[in-house]
Amino acid sequence: MKLASYLYQGRKSYGIATQSGMIDLGRLLGQRYPDLKALLAGDALSQAQELASRPADLSFDDLTFLPVIQNPEKILCVGMNYAEKRKEFDQHNPAPTLFVRFADSQTGHASPIIKPSRSVEFDYEGELAVIIGSAGENISREDALSHVAGYSCYMDGSARDWQHTWFTAGKNWRQTGAFGPWMTTADEIPDPHALAIRTWLNGNMVQDDNTRSMIHKVAELIEYISTFTSLSAGDVIITGSPGGVGKKRVPPLFMKPGDRIEVEIEKIGHLSNVIVAADRQVSHAPAAH
Amino acid sequence: MKLASYLYQGRKSYGIATQSGMIDLGRLLGQRYPDLKALLAGDALSQAQELASRPADLSFDDLTFLPVIQNPEKILCVGMNYAEKRKEFDQHNPAPTLFVRFADSQTGHASPIIKPSRSVEFDYEGELAVIIGSAGENISREDALSHVAGYSCYMDGSARDWQHTWFTAGKNWRQTGAFGPWMTTADEIPDPHALAIRTWLNGNMVQDDNTRSMIHKVAELIEYISTFTSLSAGDVIITGSPGGVGKKRVPPLFMKPGDRIEVEIEKIGHLSNVIVAADRQVSHAPAAH
Repeated sequence: MKLASYLYQGRKSYGIATQSGMIDLGRLLGQRYPDLKALLAGDALSQAQELASRPADLSFDDLTFLPVIQNPEKILCVGMNYAEKRKEFDQHNPAPTLFVRFADSQTGHASPIIKPSRSVEFDYEGELAVIIGSAGENISREDALSHVAGYSCYMDGSARDWQHTWFTAGKNWRQTGAFGPWMTTADEIPDPHALAIRTWLNGNMVQDDNTRSMIHKVAELIEYISTFTSLSAGDVIITGSPGGVGKKRVPPLFMKPGDRIEVEIEKIGHLSNVIVAADRQVSHAPAAH
Repeated sequence: MKLASYLYQGRKSYGIATQSGMIDLGRLLGQRYPDLKALLAGDALSQAQELASRPADLSFDDLTFLPVIQNPEKILCVGMNYAEKRKEFDQHNPAPTLFVRFADSQTGHASPIIKPSRSVEFDYEGELAVIIGSAGENISREDALSHVAGYSCYMDGSARDWQHTWFTAGKNWRQTGAFGPWMTTADEIPDPHALAIRTWLNGNMVQDDNTRSMIHKVAELIEYISTFTSLSAGDVIITGSPGGVGKKRVPPLFMKPGDRIEVEIEKIGHLSNVIVAADRQVSHAPAAH
């Protein structure tokens, strides 16, 4: 099952993405579960599943995708988690590299990504996003995958000239983190480490790897993170990017207004966004709260 | 005016701290402004001020302090922002060092601080906290202080052995960030860079500096941060710690269960907390949301 968040006729909703369009769960279950995060917190994926064979209510053309989870309490991002990327950035620390994104740095599938006005090094990173379903702390790696609701694509747009070793200022510009188009529920992804992951800039493949190349696997990341902070339904872990980023190319390759960036992960989906200049779009940024 | 958040008879509230006790604003204004963050978002400090000459409603002895702002949308922390501290950590990067705390890593004045169970290097950092009053983005440093609602003390408890150069895992253990006892409104602090700041561990002074020693001043931090992310009422900027932290002492000096840690900032207040072991207190952690 593929679950998305979106705007339809100005109304926020969420639903099941099918071949023929969207089943509008917001209309069917919204009184009890006002958004996808609430559906996960209510442990109600089975209620959604019972509705999955209905005919579609909405055409994809009529809706605006939102970030899969629009307002996670916590978005934890993993840096330097693919062998190639670690080589590119000469990173040898054995602990997971972790930084935080704020919810209002996100955008949805097919919505604009805003190039930070003050950056001349706006780089792409295609990543596997993990969406937490059931809350926990001190979760063992053996139990960890049972806490995962599903997986999605993420384009972790990065202002390299603001990034430093602490990441925060490079990773939180408004509308730089594209998250979508939907989450594929975990029952359809028995092994999150056997998925091709690829990124294209203007149609040219710039990243091409497989999630099996992750250094710290999803279960290990959940174990590590939940040691120091609790995880809740709707929290997101962005698991790091393969090699091939623009900063480490010769010559470097950065994103500029008009470019199209795409991330595709096997069995999950294809995320596609166009880069726009900050001054044209900042007032149209969808509110995260 | 000094504004605090607290529990009284199991009910969350907030009020004005006076010499004789607390004026319970939650009872007086709570229908319209359910918490201190809502009061700030409603630009309603003047409504509080009109009530400031009333007799106190509650004795301090009858209430449990909460973090001054219990659920900020964003808590941005500045590392390496005092000259002495930068020397201790051999930090030369000219950009502000920024990391993020999650709201549920906080605790209130006189409530337990939990020593992270898996850390043997739990260190103290006394800091000036800045609480945002009016929202903004791309705020100039000339305008910046007009966006500040007030100032408070913060004890940024740090698991050094989990900190790395990206900070996240060292700074987000539950109940490690003590925030209080209250915020002093900005009208009483015309210059946030003329305040003595001191930290005591078990009665021994371990940090002794003045906020004038900050490298990146409050106005500059607000300008820098609001360039890449918007700031909202109730957001918190923790401005970094003076030198003298335990990690850089010979021999090192870390906090253990039973220790008392205190931070005092001139004109603001005196924050005091006892360290407890994780296993005894984790189930009593106040919920941040």
